[in-house]
Amino acid sequence: MIRVTVWNEFQHERTQEKVKEIYPDGIHTCIAKFLRQEEELSVRTAVFDEKEHGLTEEVLANTDVLVFWNHMLQEEFSDDVAERVRRHVLAGMGLHSGHYSKIMRKLLGTSMTLRWRHGDRERLFCTCPTHPIAQGIPAWVDIPEEEMYGEFFDIPKPDDVVFTGWFAGGEVFRSGCTFTRGLGKIFYFQPGHEEYPIYHMPVIQKIIKNGVRWCVPVVRRPAPLDNAWVNPSTEEVYLSSHQK
Amino acid sequence: MIRVTVWNEFQHERTQEKVKEIYPDGIHTCIAKFLRQEEELSVRTAVFDEKEHGLTEEVLANTDVLVFWNHMLQEEFSDDVAERVRRHVLAGMGLHSGHYSKIMRKLLGTSMTLRWRHGDRERLFCTCPTHPIAQGIPAWVDIPEEEMYGEFFDIPKPDDVVFTGWFAGGEVFRSGCTFTRGLGKIFYFQPGHEEYPIYHMPVIQKIIKNGVRWCVPVVRRPAPLDNAWVNPSTEEVYLSSHQK
Amino acid sequence: MIRVTVWNEFQHERTQEKVKEIYPDGIHTCIAKFLRQEEELSVRTAVFDEKEHGLTEEVLANTDVLVFWNHMLQEEFSDDVAERVRRHVLAGMGLHSGHYSKIMRKLLGTSMTLRWRHGDRERLFCTCPTHPIAQGIPAWVDIPEEEMYGEFFDIPKPDDVVFTGWFAGGEVFRSGCTFTRGLGKIFYFQPGHEEYPIYHMPVIQKIIKNGVRWCVPVVRRPAPLDNAWVNPSTEEVYLSSHQK
Amino acid sequence: MIRVTVWNEFQHERTQEKVKEIYPDGIHTCIAKFLRQEEELSVRTAVFDEKEHGLTEEVLANTDVLVFWNHMLQEEFSDDVAERVRRHVLAGMGLHSGHYSKIMRKLLGTSMTLRWRHGDRERLFCTCPTHPIAQGIPAWVDIPEEEMYGEFFDIPKPDDVVFTGWFAGGEVFRSGCTFTRGLGKIFYFQPGHEEYPIYHMPVIQKIIKNGVRWCVPVVRRPAPLDNAWVNPSTEEVYLSSHQK
Repeated sequence: MIRVTVWNEFQHERTQEKVKEIYPDGIHTCIAKFLRQEEELSVRTAVFDEKEHGLTEEVLANTDVLVFWNHMLQEEFSDDVAERVRRHVLAGMGLHSGHYSKIMRKLLGTSMTLRWRHGDRERLFCTCPTHPIAQGIPAWVDIPEEEMYGEFFDIPKPDDVVFTGWFAGGEVFRSGCTFTRGLGKIFYFQPGHEEYPIYHMPVIQKIIKNGVRWCVPVVRRPAPLDNAWVNPSTEEVYLSSHQK
Repeated sequence: MIRVTVWNEFQHERTQEKVKEIYPDGIHTCIAKFLRQEEELSVRTAVFDEKEHGLTEEVLANTDVLVFWNHMLQEEFSDDVAERVRRHVLAGMGLHSGHYSKIMRKLLGTSMTLRWRHGDRERLFCTCPTHPIAQGIPAWVDIPEEEMYGEFFDIPKPDDVVFTGWFAGGEVFRSGCTFTRGLGKIFYFQPGHEEYPIYHMPVIQKIIKNGVRWCVPVVRRPAPLDNAWVNPSTEEVYLSSHQK
Repeated sequence: MIRVTVWNEFQHERTQEKVKEIYPDGIHTCIAKFLRQEEELSVRTAVFDEKEHGLTEEVLANTDVLVFWNHMLQEEFSDDVAERVRRHVLAGMGLHSGHYSKIMRKLLGTSMTLRWRHGDRERLFCTCPTHPIAQGIPAWVDIPEEEMYGEFFDIPKPDDVVFTGWFAGGEVFRSGCTFTRGLGKIFYFQPGHEEYPIYHMPVIQKIIKNGVRWCVPVVRRPAPLDNAWVNPSTEEVYLSSHQK
Repeated sequence: MIRVTVWNEFQHERTQEKVKEIYPDGIHTCIAKFLRQEEELSVRTAVFDEKEHGLTEEVLANTDVLVFWNHMLQEEFSDDVAERVRRHVLAGMGLHSGHYSKIMRKLLGTSMTLRWRHGDRERLFCTCPTHPIAQGIPAWVDIPEEEMYGEFFDIPKPDDVVFTGWFAGGEVFRSGCTFTRGLGKIFYFQPGHEEYPIYHMPVIQKIIKNGVRWCVPVVRRPAPLDNAWVNPSTEEVYLSSHQK
């Protein structure tokens, strides 16, 4: 069983009519719903307004993959909780995240800045068809309405650029990128602006499902990684047990 | 002219006799001295005990490459100065740094933890001979005394692993790694423990000189990178100026 | 069901007493046997002396992952069969291969040359613990007898260096490397010299099982990849179907 | 002095009026002319119709960087000469090449297939501003007329994707990619279709000049790389000379 926590700011959906119509119960509820179609996923949700943003030590210790959606309250997000999430990612928890969260910037080290614009249209090309996240996804996907995110996107060189976006307004973007940090696997995915019903598209749902499965830890350590003093040396230990 | 600032904690050399003998004027003075042999380098130094650790806004704005040596006062290093250095790296300043500084951890996002031991011996193999930092360096370099740093080393996947270390005590290590963050180029180099005269070795000096030259910014922005609102679109701008 | 073909030169085991003792039925039979312990694997074998080396169009079309062991008959291997295997890898077939086969050199483009020596001892460190091939493998593995392969190893930069080898004789090596070519996933794994019973070690068997699973195609195309003339343009097609 | 050889098929310019008008003396002459503006470059040219395509052992041994333009005679190109060029690249010679040459396919190992179309328009975004090839190049470059090359582009994962192309017809492309093979550095650059005056654009000329400088070998070996038998071991040699 893969334990997934879907986190959402849950602000736009309560204050903007347009967003409320698309996601009446919040983006987290929409994402949780389609993830629950998969038998091997056990899904819970958490939102910004909960205590500790709903991301307590206990919740994170029982989460294999955190799906994280944020858009406006990046700076208001607790430093302590961001550091806690970072620690769990380094210890192996998978992270499927959007743009510019405090957590992502801590893990990537760069500004994550970019060019942007409302009201564009995107075509997502698969530029790494061997990646598990691309499994069953067509060579390209049209997204009829999307916020434009354009290069230069200030991120470290991704391990893989699974999807590259073409925008009708004239830009390109590394729209689906993978990274690892410590023992944690991270999938950045750009599509999903709150004003458009992008998370209702079956192909986008499939990409997110693939992303969640890919983010499952290969190994997870209960304690944080730490420097280790090695004495006697690895050779001394080996030789003492292998030589007569 | 490449403007280099060599920074050093400068603690061990004043308190430990063994270190004082090897670096009587401090590691920074030793490094600065051999860098000054190169005509195109203009070198200054700074140390922990100076105000703002000697890394003021003005110093950093006039530094192309920061050579950074630290070993024990990582946690005592000012958060504000670490953030300032990070900002300058993202804006293009090169960074040649050793292990576990607050600055490196902020830029890489991982714990930088490893296994370690005193009193070992290292053989440094060049595993990326096409890299400019490897220019003129033999296929391997023997370092007769070195502190052991061993895998697993918790860093993001490097852009290039220029040198891989073999230790007599039985470990391997990614000893010379390059990264980019924002507009800044970063060279991590493991050799250089303060108790051994490693910075007196001509081949190590050559690697550091190569590293400094490689870290010189390709481009540097005066202002920090920022998100940019793009309206009208790039296409609209293009078409309005190119169509009759 | 994952269809695996284990291929072996099968020369040493018939001509050298020492090797015959370790692998009386050939290395392929040993590997096939432990792979067959896994329920989801369907395993067949093929050897050099068969017609077309046993790698006919039909065999390859029905192989998901080819495990390939060679050591001395690289130049005698048929050019046509090597090209056929390459074509199937580009079309998605996974390849788990050792050193210097004609197939690997065709796929990697480099010489695959290295330094080598008989009669050494290896310690294999995991340098990418997030990789599926590292799942369940300890931080390091001791191989009491092994042929030494040492850097510089002339390969393209691997996607991941899952294992890095330390040799008692003083060398390091990128001992477990992944690549992709076309739609095919490739795992290079150094341990397994025929004069030592390395394939009898349970931890080595586990790495190879992990490798086989990782090599399973994400997507496979029946026809070879080809250049595609696109007219009308992708935009014209999209707009004609989406505008009223 | 950097010794550059500019190679061209030189077919279209003699048979098609449209191309002849743009490049009356051939594409090679145009490229050689603007490269000769740089003091440190010593430039010669060679074309398909010369004996051994003008790429004799002697020419290659005296070439630091080969700029290679081809478009239609890929299959007619001599296997022997392609193998000779490959050998020189592995030995360190830089290669700045366009699409689908026999040489590039040998070095990359993949099919290099893609989608394509005539008569499009491209916008080239810099997606790796820290790369020396991007030095002095704006954030994007408009190319008013260009042949469309679109993803999926079947190449191995590049070391760096320096430029990503946006096409008005709806595609994206990894338009400027770097690779290393052996000791050689390779820059693939897509822009430059023969029917449009792209090599007359100053910014494209600057990218090519940057590319040539980046391709200069860090090290070059006179002999081909070869497997090396190492006996006594590296440790034995070291210990015999360092212990009393």
